[in-house]
Amino acid sequence: MIKIKIISLGKLKEKFFIDAAREYEKRLSSFCNFEAVEITPERLSENPTQNEIVNALKKEAAAIEKKIPQGALRIAMCIEGKQFSSEKFSKYINDAAINGRGCIVFLIGSSYGLDEALKQTADLKMSMSEMTFPHKLARVMLTEQIYRAFKILGGGTYHK
Amino acid sequence: MIKIKIISLGKLKEKFFIDAAREYEKRLSSFCNFEAVEITPERLSENPTQNEIVNALKKEAAAIEKKIPQGALRIAMCIEGKQFSSEKFSKYINDAAINGRGCIVFLIGSSYGLDEALKQTADLKMSMSEMTFPHKLARVMLTEQIYRAFKILGGGTYHK
Repeated sequence: MIKIKIISLGKLKEKFFIDAAREYEKRLSSFCNFEAVEITPERLSENPTQNEIVNALKKEAAAIEKKIPQGALRIAMCIEGKQFSSEKFSKYINDAAINGRGCIVFLIGSSYGLDEALKQTADLKMSMSEMTFPHKLARVMLTEQIYRAFKILGGGTYHK
Repeated sequence: MIKIKIISLGKLKEKFFIDAAREYEKRLSSFCNFEAVEITPERLSENPTQNEIVNALKKEAAAIEKKIPQGALRIAMCIEGKQFSSEKFSKYINDAAINGRGCIVFLIGSSYGLDEALKQTADLKMSMSEMTFPHKLARVMLTEQIYRAFKILGGGTYHK
């Protein structure tokens, strides 16, 4: 069973985001060894300077790095990334599994995104939309898309 | 105050989708006269034929049409539509208001989408992603984007 890990910055606080993510995580457990890891974001002042933001992203990147298993396929979620249809995304997941990648890691940054150097280490920069979504909602969206990918691969009526 | 209406097929059943939509609807009430209208989808057999689907979409379109105020700007949500960044989407909303459109209506179809003829009456076909999302999650995503659009227009730190 392939391992899939979402590493994201910040906790889901709202009950509706927690419950929505949990529902798709539960469904995913039939298809993969799924894990969601939450990293505590660095504290920033109310109007942080660019420097402050860059430094915080660096520290967050170091914390993220510790949570990425060796040899994992890294997918960094960022607005400038490549968009996939759900079908192409399921094929990407399937190809990774066929090529023997035992673990796929998705990285979701905070509202200031992800550290540039960390993004450069990614096998893929991926975007779900040209629109900016709150990272908590993005996590629910991504979890649903991973679930949908497995449903597409398995056939059936979930994805029409 | 501009009127914004989302007309969608099917009820939100899961509590987390209801609560998430309600949260953004509540926040939206400071910016616009917002209304969400749910249309009951046509019943289909378990493995519906193309004909059955087309007929159901036609009937649903007639029910949707009754709920669209005269003169409203019509935005049909469909995967082949145009994508916007959140900033450009907020500009589109603002331009519509400036041009005196008193009402903007967003149409979200069922899992089989929207009737073709209805789509042709739309002022804009819009997509949030190349990925296919459940229409319930799409409604939460759209409500958040409308809220974000007003926050962008008003300034502030919600959208960074």
